This record gives sequence, C-alpha cells and structure tokens, in this order.
Amino acid sequence: MDTLANLGLYGLGTMGSALALNILDNGFALHVANRSKDATDAFATEATEASLADKLTTHGSLADMARNMPAPRAIILMIPAGKPVETAIEDLCDLLEPGDTIIDAGNTDFHDTRRRTAYVEGRGLTFIGMGVSGGEEGARNGPSIMVGGTPDAWSGIRPVIEAIAAKFEDAPCADHLGPDGAGHFVKTVHNGIEYADMQMITELYGMMRYGQGMEPAAIGARFESWDTGALKSYLVEITGKVLQATDSKTGKPAVDVILDKAGQKGTGRWTLIEALRLGQSASSIEAAVAARSWSSEKETRVAGEEILAGTRNAVELGEADYADALLAARIIAYAQGFRLLSAASDEYEWSLDFARIAEIWRAGCIIRSSLLDDISAAFRGDMPHGQLVFAPAFADRLSKTVPALRRVVAAAALGGHPIPALASALSFIDTFAMARGLTDLIQGQRDFFGMHGFERLDDGSTGQHGPWWE
Amino acid sequence: MDTLANLGLYGLGTMGSALALNILDNGFALHVANRSKDATDAFATEATEASLADKLTTHGSLADMARNMPAPRAIILMIPAGKPVETAIEDLCDLLEPGDTIIDAGNTDFHDTRRRTAYVEGRGLTFIGMGVSGGEEGARNGPSIMVGGTPDAWSGIRPVIEAIAAKFEDAPCADHLGPDGAGHFVKTVHNGIEYADMQMITELYGMMRYGQGMEPAAIGARFESWDTGALKSYLVEITGKVLQATDSKTGKPAVDVILDKAGQKGTGRWTLIEALRLGQSASSIEAAVAARSWSSEKETRVAGEEILAGTRNAVELGEADYADALLAARIIAYAQGFRLLSAASDEYEWSLDFARIAEIWRAGCIIRSSLLDDISAAFRGDMPHGQLVFAPAFADRLSKTVPALRRVVAAAALGGHPIPALASALSFIDTFAMARGLTDLIQGQRDFFGMHGFERLDDGSTGQHGPWWE
Repeated sequence: MDTLANLGLYGLGTMGSALALNILDNGFALHVANRSKDATDAFATEATEASLADKLTTHGSLADMARNMPAPRAIILMIPAGKPVETAIEDLCDLLEPGDTIIDAGNTDFHDTRRRTAYVEGRGLTFIGMGVSGGEEGARNGPSIMVGGTPDAWSGIRPVIEAIAAKFEDAPCADHLGPDGAGHFVKTVHNGIEYADMQMITELYGMMRYGQGMEPAAIGARFESWDTGALKSYLVEITGKVLQATDSKTGKPAVDVILDKAGQKGTGRWTLIEALRLGQSASSIEAAVAARSWSSEKETRVAGEEILAGTRNAVELGEADYADALLAARIIAYAQGFRLLSAASDEYEWSLDFARIAEIWRAGCIIRSSLLDDISAAFRGDMPHGQLVFAPAFADRLSKTVPALRRVVAAAALGGHPIPALASALSFIDTFAMARGLTDLIQGQRDFFGMHGFERLDDGSTGQHGPWWE
Repeated sequence: MDTLANLGLYGLGTMGSALALNILDNGFALHVANRSKDATDAFATEATEASLADKLTTHGSLADMARNMPAPRAIILMIPAGKPVETAIEDLCDLLEPGDTIIDAGNTDFHDTRRRTAYVEGRGLTFIGMGVSGGEEGARNGPSIMVGGTPDAWSGIRPVIEAIAAKFEDAPCADHLGPDGAGHFVKTVHNGIEYADMQMITELYGMMRYGQGMEPAAIGARFESWDTGALKSYLVEITGKVLQATDSKTGKPAVDVILDKAGQKGTGRWTLIEALRLGQSASSIEAAVAARSWSSEKETRVAGEEILAGTRNAVELGEADYADALLAARIIAYAQGFRLLSAASDEYEWSLDFARIAEIWRAGCIIRSSLLDDISAAFRGDMPHGQLVFAPAFADRLSKTVPALRRVVAAAALGGHPIPALASALSFIDTFAMARGLTDLIQGQRDFFGMHGFERLDDGSTGQHGPWWE
C-alpha cells in the first residue's frame, strides 16, 4: 500500500474520542461514526471547540461511514471487545472492498485477533490488531501503540500511527511487532505487568499506612520523591498524586472515600490464561489478579476481620527498604512479563523484538518507566538464558535490592500485612537462584502414588522408579 | 435403569488394569479391550494368576467388545483425555443403542464432558463423566469416585461403583455429585488441592534440609511422626516414606538421585484456567503449578544460582512451627479448592454438596486426610459467608497455627528459601482478615489514568471521580 488510506474511526467513547482528536490534531482527515448519533454530535462539537473540525466528516452509522468514504479506507474500531467488535467486522466485510483495512484498536483477546485476521484476509481485506495504551490522556496526546498485522498492512497506516503515538526523545512509541495477534498480545502482557506493578505499590502503601501509621499524604510524598532515578515511572508519579489528594466534599484523604473493591477487566485474566496454556506462570501478575478478585468480596472480608481476629502489627522498616523492595519486585514483574512474551513468540512464531517492545513502552503507556531504557539495553546486550534477571545490569540491581524485598516480605508476614505480589516476586527469584530445586521430592511423591517415574540424576536414565516399588 | 448393565472397560493401562481387577475382585462380570492386543493378553494372564478370570471376557478391539456384549451395556473408558476419548465416544455412538451407557473415567476437562454429555445423550445414549482418584493402588483396592451425570445414569451403575470404591468406616467413597461435568470438575479441583498440598510439604522439606541442615531421613521421620491427629494424611505418610527411602544403587537418600524437574499434567492448569474464567483465584494452587513449571527450567536455574549468587541461609525454627504451618496452609488450600467448587456450582447450576464431597475424599484418593472429617462437619454446621476458614472449628485452628505459618514465611523470605505456596496461603488469610482493604489506592490509580470511576464509601454513590479530575 503506497498511498495513505482514508481514515475512519468508529466508537466515540472516552478512548475513541481522544484518539480521534489526536488524529485530527496531527493534521489528518478523519471520518467518524458511533452507535448512537448523540455521541457523534457531541464529538463534532468538541472538535469544533478545539478548532479541530476542519478535516472531520461525521456519519450516522458505521455503514454510512463505510459507504461514503472514498477508497482505500482504513477503519479503526474503538469499541468494547467481544460481540461489538465481532459484529462490526462482520458488517465491514460486507461493506468494504479489497485494498481496505479494518483496525481493531481495542483490548481484544489475541486469539480472537488471530481468528479474525484469517477471516478478514480470506475476504480479501486487510486486518490489523492494534494495542493502544495510555488511558484517555495517552489516547489524546500520544499513546504507546503495538501493531500486529502484515508488513504491508503496517506500511499503509504507519505515517498516521507514528504521528499520533507518544514520542520518546522524538522517536515514536509505536511499531509493527509481528503478525496477526502479536500487537494485542503484547498489549495484554503490558496490562498484566501494569496489574502487578499497581498491586506491589499498593502492598507497600498498606504496610506504611497500617504498619507504620503513616498518613496517605506522607506516603504520597514518599512516592513523589521516588519518582526519579531507577523508580521513575508514571505509576509511581500518579500514586504520589493520588495519595496526596484531598476529597473536596469531606476534606479527607481522597483514598479514604474510595470503596476498596477493584475492578478487573479481561486483560489481567487473559494474560494468566495464556500463560497457563503456554505452560508458564507469571506469579506476580497472578497475585495481582487474585488481589483484585478478593477485593470484590468486601462483605466477606468485613466478617473475616472479626472472625479471624485480623490485626496488622507494627512494622519497622526504613524508607529505603520500601523503595528498594519496589524496584526489585518491579524488575521481577517485568521479567515475568517478558518471559511470557518470549513463550508466546516461540509458540506463535512471532519473532518478537523484546528490546523494541521495551522501547515503545517508554512513553505514552501506563507502565512507562525509566527501567525500560535499561530493559531495552539488556535485551540488546548479554542476556544469559534469555532471562532479564540474569542480564548483568539487572542481576547487579537485584543483588542490591532483593535484601530489602526480603525484609519487607518477612515484616509483612509477621505483621499480618497481605503482600501476595511482593511475596510471589521473591519466591520467583529464590526459585531461579537454586540450581538444585526441591521438586525431587514431588517427583518422588508422584512416583510413589502414581508410578509416574522419574529421571535419575546420576546416569540420566528416565522412567525410573524409587525403592518403594522394589 | 433397573437392571445392572453389562460392564465393559476399554483401556488396560496402569489405571485401567487396576480398575478392571478391582471390578472382577468384587464379583462382577467384565468385558475388556485395549487398543493393542498385547495389553489385553497380558491383562488376561494377570487376571488368571490372581484367580479373577472367571467372569472376564476379552475382546480384540473396542468395536468387537461393543458388538459382542449383550445389551444393556455400560462401557468404561480409561484412556488418555483428549483425542483418544473423543474418537472412542464417536465410535461407540455408532455401535451402541438406547439404554447403553458410556462412562469416561479419565481426567477429562469438564468442559469437554459437558459438551459430550449433550452430544451422546442427543444420540439417545447415556453419558457419565467420572473422576477416579487414588493412583494405581486406589484403582486396584478402592479409589474415591466422583460421578457426574443424570440420576438415572447413576442408578444404573451405582452398585458397581459403590462396590469398587474405597470405604470409609464401611461407607463407599463414591457418589453422584451433579449433572454432566460435575464429577470431572470435582476431580480436577481435587488434583489442584493435591498440587498445593504437595508443594507446601516440599517447601517445608526444603527449609528443613537447606535451612537447618537436616538429612532427608530425619525430615522423613518428622513427617512420619506428623501422620497422626490433624495432619494425618496420605501425602504426609508417603512423604515420610519417600524421604526415608534409600536408593539401592548408590546407597544415597532416594530423593537425592531424582532429577528435580516435576511434570505437570492437565488438571492443575485446568483448575486455574477455570478459576480465572469464574473470576476466582486459588493462589496456593497457582503457586504449586508455577513451581512445577519453573522446576522444568533446570539449566536456567543452574545458571541462576551462580548469576544471582543464590544462597540459602540458616533458619531457626522448631519442629512444631513446621507442623503448624503445614496445617494452616493445608486448611487454606482446601478452603481455596472449595471456594472454586462453590463458584463453579453456582455458574453451572450443579448444586454441589460440599460436605458430601469432603466425605468421599476421606478414603481412596490422594488428598485423603483426617481434616476432611472436620471439613465435612463444618459444611454441615455454621459456616459464615460459606467460607471454610470462617467455620468455628477452622477459625480456631487457624488462630493457633497461622502464627507458625508467619514465622515460617518470614524465615524463608529472609533465608532465601522459595516458599511460593506457603506465602500465597498466608496472603490469602491476611487479605480476608482485613475489612478495609488496600484496593482503594488501586481504584484511585485506575480513576486517575483511565477515568474508570469508583464508588464512594460515605454515600455509596458510584461512577465517582477523584479530585485529580476536578
């Protein structure tokens, strides 16, 4: 595709509207439509007020837009995953023609993207599965964009995508990562790491608050001060802001008026289900998804505090312990995420470029952090066994910070502070620092009760049985 | 079905042969067949040697057996899950006739069982999905049997199943648990709990061995001594035996000649995938599956010990700490398993009888333990919020044993001993002992970056945003 296609965007919710303004703001002509006409009108008003309506054309429906746009067309779908996307693709396959492109920019399960790529391309059209991270603010001013599709499909939209993407030192945080589901899967794992990072931050907040009696604002000030150097990151930055914010109605700390039930959308779960399918485990993400799931059982927890006589005891840790523990745990969460990407890349033959993925996460997305520069460098350098935690720079950082993670986990365990993600991260590193593991016993048990057999360490003979069978 | 059907069994591997001998031993006539004729002949010889061949009829193939058995027929499949079961069912649907029953006694994903029940019953036949636990020894002398199917289907095979099942105080450890996939799902969760229990035992072994310098035989003697009272269980019993066994070739402790890579079959993963689908997390099972998955990366761990300078430091804990920690963690693993059963029972409208499930696990199966008597009683008694850990007897036990679990987790964290399952169990209990959780911060973060909104604690208003949006 040599000419830039005419662009359409369907779905003017929070993310869709923001992305549409971003596209217009970058000087591209854009057609838009939405399921309800009201949202389209509201968007037109918003664009006009922002002096961005010159190149905007609105349509009453997806079908109207597809019919009235000149070919070649590239239509971005920014609508809820699942049935809505399925229906829109089905409709577009009847309305579009060869040379046209459908772009699913939502959080779609990459298995659906793989299936749809085959289907849409079988109909003679081009399909792109595109992960977009950065929330509303990112969508408006520059998100991180992870593209899956053919190289031709990518070249057809590349100028637009690179223009609207976040920039890191002037380079766009967007790239073509692989075929079909590669973009959506990388976005899914991004979200998995996001879950883990948010949970680890939250666990440390809990210990400072309920173990050291610090007020939210004081804890927020710590996070603010950590938003520099190795911990510099969007999530640390906004944690500082959230914890220092005051509810205008009550004058209380803002977090104190928020119900402690967290939502979990599909991506956290999808990350884990795919990990399990691939025979992998990303334990820090598992812990984070578990914590959100359990948080929804508020009434049970209220009863539990009384029945289990829940108390949180004092914790004696210095500020550096918390900061170092977060750095160690964050490195491990990233490492687990990249292990998953690696397993999926092998399984689906995507040839993912991990260094490049780290680079396009450096700006625009929720997990952007200074660590990603080092991760990118690590993947381009010496990395024994393909393990991020073994790259010299990270092994060195871990040697300096894991001791703090140990102190934090131990203090939390003794003090009654739940730290599922931090503890999972520590057990991961302790498992991989143990050449001779413990599963000899598990293999012995399995052979005892199920005659499963094992491999002998001394001569490598397999299918061996223990003396209990002699 | 009033008459007992004529019984056939297809698949004479380790489990199939053992189950066939068990059936014959209980005086029932039995037809058998296997994919390869050799195994059928070998089985006939074995049955003859055991004086159990009087009522045995062998056939050259599944089709021969189905054709030559008088109706009504009930054919048990004891073959690998997946394609082999699928093919056998397809074949049998063509060979059998209304009034006949197909019983899948393997470890099948219950979603397949649900689908096959509909398919087979649509063909006018009866289908039963049956979980069988106890390994080879259980299959031969009495396994625990979990049956899914219609009440009629159950009444048609009940006399045989109850006869061959393990007995607990003379009552058979077998029952009809619900329709279609109920039996296979309960077996899947049984295996998930088994994974967790084995892993927690193994973590404690690792601490005693590498943190306190104890030899395997001495640790085995501890497990042997714990196999009484609240910890009395098959897995503790066999751990004692495995650790005290000596390799006859080298004279070393048996565990020391076993390669530390553990296999993981489908059931552990299936348990977790289903948990995630149901919006649940069984963290101790997740940790156990992760540990097995990581154990397979032996070469990576060997490199990791050097790169990460892995060392395991001394641990100072008394014997009672280990025993109490195991009891606390085991209670939590069971509780997490039953939470999953409860969620699935709601989702699939199975009306599972949790007390009854605990009862039929008391003998024959791998996770049989004295605790199951108390679990059964707890489900029949007062159980606030349906949580096993809140039942008075268990809340009381936890109050006495969780402090030891805290000491163990803290010592392991400081000492470099991986304890993913024990730490996950502790974080579960600490989460549910906390009325005011920590996810207020996560909700604040989500609202900050994605305008997700939250519910206010003070007035219950939903879709609220923080002051960062004002």
